[in-house]
Amino acid sequence: MKKILIATSALVATAGIAHAEVSVSGQAIAGLIYNSEGVEKTKLLNKVNIEFNGSGETDGGLQFGFNTNHIIENNGLSVDNDDTTVWMSGAFGKLSFGAVAEADEVAGLSDIGWDGLDVDDVAEALVGDELLDNGQAGKGLGHNVNYTYATGPVTFSLSGRLATSHGTLAPGASDAESYAAGVKYSFGTGYVGLGYGSHDFKLLAASPVAAMDRAKVVSVFAGATFDAIKVAAMYSDASFKSVTGVKSGADAYGLNASYTMDALTVSMGYSKANFDLATGRNDQKAFGIGAAYDLGGGASVSGGIAQVESVGDENQGNRLLPKAKETRADFGVTFKF
Amino acid sequence: MKKILIATSALVATAGIAHAEVSVSGQAIAGLIYNSEGVEKTKLLNKVNIEFNGSGETDGGLQFGFNTNHIIENNGLSVDNDDTTVWMSGAFGKLSFGAVAEADEVAGLSDIGWDGLDVDDVAEALVGDELLDNGQAGKGLGHNVNYTYATGPVTFSLSGRLATSHGTLAPGASDAESYAAGVKYSFGTGYVGLGYGSHDFKLLAASPVAAMDRAKVVSVFAGATFDAIKVAAMYSDASFKSVTGVKSGADAYGLNASYTMDALTVSMGYSKANFDLATGRNDQKAFGIGAAYDLGGGASVSGGIAQVESVGDENQGNRLLPKAKETRADFGVTFKF
Amino acid sequence: MKKILIATSALVATAGIAHAEVSVSGQAIAGLIYNSEGVEKTKLLNKVNIEFNGSGETDGGLQFGFNTNHIIENNGLSVDNDDTTVWMSGAFGKLSFGAVAEADEVAGLSDIGWDGLDVDDVAEALVGDELLDNGQAGKGLGHNVNYTYATGPVTFSLSGRLATSHGTLAPGASDAESYAAGVKYSFGTGYVGLGYGSHDFKLLAASPVAAMDRAKVVSVFAGATFDAIKVAAMYSDASFKSVTGVKSGADAYGLNASYTMDALTVSMGYSKANFDLATGRNDQKAFGIGAAYDLGGGASVSGGIAQVESVGDENQGNRLLPKAKETRADFGVTFKF
Repeated sequence: MKKILIATSALVATAGIAHAEVSVSGQAIAGLIYNSEGVEKTKLLNKVNIEFNGSGETDGGLQFGFNTNHIIENNGLSVDNDDTTVWMSGAFGKLSFGAVAEADEVAGLSDIGWDGLDVDDVAEALVGDELLDNGQAGKGLGHNVNYTYATGPVTFSLSGRLATSHGTLAPGASDAESYAAGVKYSFGTGYVGLGYGSHDFKLLAASPVAAMDRAKVVSVFAGATFDAIKVAAMYSDASFKSVTGVKSGADAYGLNASYTMDALTVSMGYSKANFDLATGRNDQKAFGIGAAYDLGGGASVSGGIAQVESVGDENQGNRLLPKAKETRADFGVTFKF
Repeated sequence: MKKILIATSALVATAGIAHAEVSVSGQAIAGLIYNSEGVEKTKLLNKVNIEFNGSGETDGGLQFGFNTNHIIENNGLSVDNDDTTVWMSGAFGKLSFGAVAEADEVAGLSDIGWDGLDVDDVAEALVGDELLDNGQAGKGLGHNVNYTYATGPVTFSLSGRLATSHGTLAPGASDAESYAAGVKYSFGTGYVGLGYGSHDFKLLAASPVAAMDRAKVVSVFAGATFDAIKVAAMYSDASFKSVTGVKSGADAYGLNASYTMDALTVSMGYSKANFDLATGRNDQKAFGIGAAYDLGGGASVSGGIAQVESVGDENQGNRLLPKAKETRADFGVTFKF
Repeated sequence: MKKILIATSALVATAGIAHAEVSVSGQAIAGLIYNSEGVEKTKLLNKVNIEFNGSGETDGGLQFGFNTNHIIENNGLSVDNDDTTVWMSGAFGKLSFGAVAEADEVAGLSDIGWDGLDVDDVAEALVGDELLDNGQAGKGLGHNVNYTYATGPVTFSLSGRLATSHGTLAPGASDAESYAAGVKYSFGTGYVGLGYGSHDFKLLAASPVAAMDRAKVVSVFAGATFDAIKVAAMYSDASFKSVTGVKSGADAYGLNASYTMDALTVSMGYSKANFDLATGRNDQKAFGIGAAYDLGGGASVSGGIAQVESVGDENQGNRLLPKAKETRADFGVTFKF
């Protein structure tokens, strides 16, 4: 007995019903990914993502809901989660818990390619939760609370990594402390934004990233759409203080542009991140071009190729390691349900 | 393409269709939990629970179905299961497999608070599957088969932990053997109940809980609703025999009362468990008060505060360890979809 | 607020809508499994399988979709995946990624019993992904790409295990390389089929299955339905080359027959696999009988008993170990939603 969920476009009037609802949607992708420096250069990738979204409204007009994803990659044995949030919103704004957006990442850049070649990650290396990845610092930086308030064209956001054992344990064992704020001004088809993040990693002096123990990051964002052309850019500047008080800095910037002709969209991205010698990190650079073709009905085929100069898959290089320049490419189909 | 599931209240006549169906519902919570003895006293907690329920009917009128939950806590990486059962029912009664109710826990007490402060756990320490928790005995006690038969106001239940390697391996390695029976009599807005559980943990003499290797537990339950007031109480008495044949005992009792005024419900709970010295366990005590406010549309806000005197989070203390008195509190929103 | 998914038989016209859709269905089973050689001979088994299927169509008429299962066995803590695929099809045929069918397993035999006693596994020991199981070779053989083209009564298939680090690492560390092809001809109520598989396990000389490092397998299949009787048979012949170049061989065959009277189906299966001494494996044999009764509404009750002569649960015996003859039985209910 197969069940079919009713598409929102079906003429079933549920909008007038006050009851909270769960909707099920999904995404499936299949294709090839290439990395010139991989043990095996070309790999197959397929992924199915079942998305559950809940939404409801209280008698007093407060909106509430959740979003969660159940992911299976390459027919792996386990069902994994990605980005689960619980939220409520009303006249006071919107409050979210879980895998929330970091407020200083006001408007990240789009990535290049099909599954994504991480061209944008170099430009975003100093904002959001990407400053130190888990592999190097052993500490997550993802925020778990976000408050956003929109009034007319202006949107304010605050977010933080709260109540996750930071400051209650010895340095090294204690989790990172992190806060961020952002503001975005939209006009016509464009926007400008300003972000600020403050992080205290509570690292040990022996940590390979001890030079960046405390960080203040200011970022600016701008973007606009001119007919078939869409452009977005960002710049960020970080000031670091090491475990022993030594100061250093870094900046990062990037640009993404795309042009759409009927079903075809071509895009390019460029990103650069410069680190002071004292940070112990290499400079990073990425450039890529991609194309996507909309097949209709929720299906598209897309691909991209990029040259990325960094150490590690997440583009977070430690200067102690040699530079690495990778050629990355991907190509595949994306189906949305 | 988002899909929206039709709420049961929508005017779509599926009741008359004989086909087996899967329904999707859910619950999301977000809030704060506090424990005076925690490494970090206050923590954020958010949880999304997707519930799948199947139900159908054979040509001969046998009902059947399943219940399962897919849970994501604090945006964790994995999707976890809680309480999956498969059941069938008919004139013969109802037979359930999986995460079934233990028959001697005829009517457990409600907990206090939002996510729950485990005030009821002290009163329930001797019934159901709570006698020895996994941490101490290394053995689960959850039953996996339940048979329930209801006739008029009387409901009988039998349950057991069957076919999970108990008795087939050496003591210590063998799993616990456990059976329970219960009967409940309902009248007007009230009920009385009687439960009996028999457990053989097949422990080694060196086990820290060897004094309670075999247990017989008798429990009584009563509850009633008087207009806006709801009261429930339970008492249980356990007789233990140690690995070497030494006898001891314990008793536990508790009370839960709540008062509802329109959308607001206030509640209190008190629990006490007394262990003979020979059991090697400390006496336990818990008291808490809570409040819940129904926001309508499936949303509520609730919280509680409790003082709990026990060792360990599950209120299962070993007398060898010092007493621990904790203050616990929680507060948050609950959304049902 | 419970949501009920609309059964396909409900009078909601979604067929005419071009949008991609996700459907949710499921299966739940509960019963007993017996193995004469088990540490605990009789065990309870219950399993809930939530199935998600996506399907859609591009503007150009290309079909696409996915299939995935979320499984919970015996109320285990985790939600597991089984057999996730992403596919697309059109005039060119059907291309699948993920947990695809191996092309040489043109028409496997049905198993005997309720949850399945693996009687068919002996006959299928040389085809598909069953030649070396993970336990012995440490290497998976499951294919991840399948291309199938059907024209009139003839269906061609090609499949492979692609881009999973085979050939890029040292022998032993490198994954298996595997390809297969199959063709099936259907007529009236019957079919004949031919399959070919080629595998290179890239084993070390010290591997216990080093004698079967490279394998070529030819298989033939036939089946037909005569009124209430359904018969299927298969034969396969394998040529092995060891790590050091020593040649050996094996063959395997099996038969499955069933007879249906109204709601009752009785079935029998026989399987045999013969290995050359040089392969280091024991011969294997299995015989079983079973019965299934359709209760209507998606429910059935079924069971079987079999005698299986092999080493290991997957019927993949190493000759260095003693022979093992097991009696297996199972009995339980199956509910489809």
